[in-house]
Amino acid sequence: MGRPRTPLLDRERIATTALEIVDERGDFSVPQVAKRLGAQTGSVYHHVEGRDGIVELLRERVAAAIDPATLDLRPWDTALEAWARSYRAAFAAHPKAIPLLMTSPVRAPRVLEQYERAVALLLDAGFAPADVMPLLTALENLVLGSALDLAAPETMWELTASSPTPRLAEALSAASEGRADRADRAFEVGLTAFMKHAREVRADTP
Amino acid sequence: MGRPRTPLLDRERIATTALEIVDERGDFSVPQVAKRLGAQTGSVYHHVEGRDGIVELLRERVAAAIDPATLDLRPWDTALEAWARSYRAAFAAHPKAIPLLMTSPVRAPRVLEQYERAVALLLDAGFAPADVMPLLTALENLVLGSALDLAAPETMWELTASSPTPRLAEALSAASEGRADRADRAFEVGLTAFMKHAREVRADTP
Repeated sequence: MGRPRTPLLDRERIATTALEIVDERGDFSVPQVAKRLGAQTGSVYHHVEGRDGIVELLRERVAAAIDPATLDLRPWDTALEAWARSYRAAFAAHPKAIPLLMTSPVRAPRVLEQYERAVALLLDAGFAPADVMPLLTALENLVLGSALDLAAPETMWELTASSPTPRLAEALSAASEGRADRADRAFEVGLTAFMKHAREVRADTP
Repeated sequence: MGRPRTPLLDRERIATTALEIVDERGDFSVPQVAKRLGAQTGSVYHHVEGRDGIVELLRERVAAAIDPATLDLRPWDTALEAWARSYRAAFAAHPKAIPLLMTSPVRAPRVLEQYERAVALLLDAGFAPADVMPLLTALENLVLGSALDLAAPETMWELTASSPTPRLAEALSAASEGRADRADRAFEVGLTAFMKHAREVRADTP
């Protein structure tokens, strides 16, 4: 019941260990965290509010790499675009954590605070309140999909003689080679499309 | 060395079992698949080309739910949009498989064939070869990010009194409630933005 008097070091160590496990396996259990820390499962529960509490520690840890200053930039579209780039980089460092974090409700205060600032940016820029969350969520889908893509191998399509795909081969050779370049170019296409649309939505808002 | 004479039933059972495990855990190992089938790990290797071979079976299985007729539609933008919707639905049924499939090279012949058709659609519509893969990948990032979002809980942001976020609360209440609606609306925003951009790219192609 309630949060324990925060033993900061321990919560930090629990977060670090859980993130290590998630980076390896895409998921974690509290007993796994305890085992790796050489502790009893029960002791871990002394420091966090259950498994969900650890998920929120992970979320804060991963999101801490997003540059908060991006949301102070103006005009709004410069800020939103810079935030999206920083957000992608932060999550690309932990691709296996993406599904876990995308499918658990956001409770971490520091992360909610970041959403608050992103929402305020758009409201203050003149967006209709009903448009804000669908826009931010669409941007996040693009950002997190692209962060996963950044973890993909250099050669994503392995063509074989047994499956002749001449048009695919043509398109692949026309696109430049190299993983980072491949993933970055796709992200730029998606981000350009999104930002253009967002500017139009704002221009159409009475 | 080489592919065994395909014992179809067994490859099917291996794929089904591996997908079950991935749906539960987000990953699988060959020994886990063997154990669940009551077989020796070595026997599994008799039927597939290693772990990567199983990943490709999973890819074919998940992608088989994408309606191939969408890519026969015309004009090209109707086809691409219908394909994106069907693609999202297919992967939303297996959200935990998304990171695994997004980060392994595509070798499955039937899946390569589907890329071949999507690429041909855009080339035949007049897109420059160098634009095709970045556009398709940007669309996939959006589609797969949105498929993951569809697996997110109904209430994605849990606001607390201890972390006052009035603007976020305003935006959330202005957006309609309900998970499917929330995720679907965000997907529509992203897809609208993408399709508009793709039409402009094509219009700008000499």
